[in-house]
Amino acid sequence: MKIPPVKGTRDFYPLDMARRNWIIDGWKRVSLRNGFEEYDGPIFEYLKMFQLKSGDEIAEQLFSLTDRGGRELALRPEITPTMARMMNQQINSLPKPIKWFSVPRLFRAERPQRGRLREFFQWNVDIIGVDDVLADAEIIFTTIDYLSSVGLTPRDIRVKISNRKLLASALTNIGIPEKQLYSLYALLDKYNRIPPDVFEKTLAEQVPDSAPAKKIVDFMNTTTLSEVPEIVGKDPEVDTAMQELASLKDLLEQMGVWQFCDFYPSIVRGLAYYTGVVFEVHAVGGELRAVGGGGRYDNLLQDFGGPSIAATGMGMGDCVLGILLEERNLIPEDLSTQQLDYFIASADKKYFPKVIEITAKLRRTGKAANFAYKPTGLSKQLKQASVQGAKKCIIIGSEIESGKLVVKDMATGEQKTTELDNLLK
Amino acid sequence: MKIPPVKGTRDFYPLDMARRNWIIDGWKRVSLRNGFEEYDGPIFEYLKMFQLKSGDEIAEQLFSLTDRGGRELALRPEITPTMARMMNQQINSLPKPIKWFSVPRLFRAERPQRGRLREFFQWNVDIIGVDDVLADAEIIFTTIDYLSSVGLTPRDIRVKISNRKLLASALTNIGIPEKQLYSLYALLDKYNRIPPDVFEKTLAEQVPDSAPAKKIVDFMNTTTLSEVPEIVGKDPEVDTAMQELASLKDLLEQMGVWQFCDFYPSIVRGLAYYTGVVFEVHAVGGELRAVGGGGRYDNLLQDFGGPSIAATGMGMGDCVLGILLEERNLIPEDLSTQQLDYFIASADKKYFPKVIEITAKLRRTGKAANFAYKPTGLSKQLKQASVQGAKKCIIIGSEIESGKLVVKDMATGEQKTTELDNLLK
Repeated sequence: MKIPPVKGTRDFYPLDMARRNWIIDGWKRVSLRNGFEEYDGPIFEYLKMFQLKSGDEIAEQLFSLTDRGGRELALRPEITPTMARMMNQQINSLPKPIKWFSVPRLFRAERPQRGRLREFFQWNVDIIGVDDVLADAEIIFTTIDYLSSVGLTPRDIRVKISNRKLLASALTNIGIPEKQLYSLYALLDKYNRIPPDVFEKTLAEQVPDSAPAKKIVDFMNTTTLSEVPEIVGKDPEVDTAMQELASLKDLLEQMGVWQFCDFYPSIVRGLAYYTGVVFEVHAVGGELRAVGGGGRYDNLLQDFGGPSIAATGMGMGDCVLGILLEERNLIPEDLSTQQLDYFIASADKKYFPKVIEITAKLRRTGKAANFAYKPTGLSKQLKQASVQGAKKCIIIGSEIESGKLVVKDMATGEQKTTELDNLLK
Repeated sequence: MKIPPVKGTRDFYPLDMARRNWIIDGWKRVSLRNGFEEYDGPIFEYLKMFQLKSGDEIAEQLFSLTDRGGRELALRPEITPTMARMMNQQINSLPKPIKWFSVPRLFRAERPQRGRLREFFQWNVDIIGVDDVLADAEIIFTTIDYLSSVGLTPRDIRVKISNRKLLASALTNIGIPEKQLYSLYALLDKYNRIPPDVFEKTLAEQVPDSAPAKKIVDFMNTTTLSEVPEIVGKDPEVDTAMQELASLKDLLEQMGVWQFCDFYPSIVRGLAYYTGVVFEVHAVGGELRAVGGGGRYDNLLQDFGGPSIAATGMGMGDCVLGILLEERNLIPEDLSTQQLDYFIASADKKYFPKVIEITAKLRRTGKAANFAYKPTGLSKQLKQASVQGAKKCIIIGSEIESGKLVVKDMATGEQKTTELDNLLK
């Protein structure tokens, strides 16, 4: 009986796994050097937790399940609600500021397409308790620190930065009622992903008057920050948003990464919970979705029953990133699935028990070692050593009677005789 | 709105995460040094895949879900079916023997109890394509290699070994029809976990005659291999099974780990798919469930639509293991959630931009570095450096005007002045 895998999921054969580990290890290394601590939560939570704040697009894509007690659960589509829940549970004992990272496996019941799978990994970094654009800058720096560490340059990727406060002010000044803002964010977030006529038609449904609708389109088309006050009108909220963005630029310059960044007023982010600086990382050229994105979400912990506390963070999935790194030839070609220090061969079948004994001893001293299950001819064993990428091959022959063996360097071909005891030290 | 976590799942706060990483990194390190390559599959598969061969206990505990297309899926309760599916897909191109390991996250919808959660991690090692007890020996060696690498001794754990062929012969010779064997295995597997009177009552339902029922109980009570033929009768199957166990012992002696092992004829393993050597690792004393277990399953790939090919493997969960390691004080106390090379402090607020610049530069050279978001007094910053476990603290003061700074060793308290350029090299 042959059963296929489920569409939108991935099988990680050893080489795929090496690639996945390479990406995830990079995320972890950069998180740690930027001072973040790792955490994780369960794969499933109560369904209602994700319906609370995730935004319509994510809530529609939940994989839900019911347990034997009739509880409605869901596979996590993002980790931020879990993080908020966990922090709220221990908010008084956790030293502030909190800098946490995670690489959760996430699930979205959407139609699989290029760069979008139903099961994927997402790097998350978050800073809680810093009510200062410096934390937003550090989140953006950490994001760029990873992307540049794998070889992406300002010519490959752009970090497009805006402030949710700008958009909120723009829409409010135009006369959009507050309760309509969230559904409009969801539409505006799709601005660059849907055809212009579809966008304008959908916008007309939400904003029937043509004057405010035109202002919204003008705002979405701006790529110069200084033009924004002209379009949206001047007010204290707009001033604050503009000042935050100016400080953010200064900080990113001090950090030496501004050359990766642009202001981009039309950046929205689909999630309902953002409150301040927002950003997305896009590949230059091509049709890829955002590589990652994030922003400030100062109300989220409170929304989940905790205190009012400042928060900012970023998420980056492995699917779009993987495609981008492949396109730019940035995935190392020599990723290996095995790193054998030794392959242990026998010059004669009768030494096979010695092969087993010495392999076991080497492993217990911490060396990676392998051997052939069938004591075949030596040249066949040497070939197997080479296929498995062993650094050295130990050949056990008559010398073993006096506690010696031959060690062959697989790169140089050089052979020398060594004492077994020295090898095991 | 406060939403609790789901019962039987775990939140991994940074210290819990450090502990989880310590266990999983150990599993990975030992797998690699024993020559295994890492793989993984999806978290969910078609429901029917797990109903096929997992044995009743697991099939009853599936978390099932339905996707938007009405497909019946399940969260994986074990990874072996996925492995069989993946291997069958590429069986012709994978070089044999195949030595694979994985550390999947698994799910069972059972009632949470000590050592049994609804979500857990399980180390799996498998060798495919070796029709020789040597592969079973290597699986058992690898299991013990990990357990002894974390400090468990033969006085802490015992590997209890039997052969499914012995049990099959015993039951067949007693007159149990073949179609009844699997349901009987499931009962016998619980022999040491349910009260004797409950066991005998349930056994009487399956085997009403008292003579064969008594023989079964005698067999389950044997702890001496040599007594087995007397109880179950002599036949070629029993001989083969006995010979396999004798060879296994020889090999485990050559590997230097037999002192951890005992023959234990009553070891059954619940899963339906075992065909030869089976084993379980148990803690000495106490009431813990098996730490891990496994065995030979030569028919599984064929059952999943692939070729007939020899296979043997082992699984070990993180829950019982975690409890055991805690009980024996074997979890390192100094597991850290952060490893900062530097904490960057300023002697005066006016150097704060320099703090930001130098922190960013150090991080980009690969050093783990952190700083205080608010430029407070120096002693407060030094305290923060110490709380975060920084190895060194860099103090930026007036020397920076000439490109110099003070580096304080946090362990010795020693301070010296260094060129910034040297630090960034």
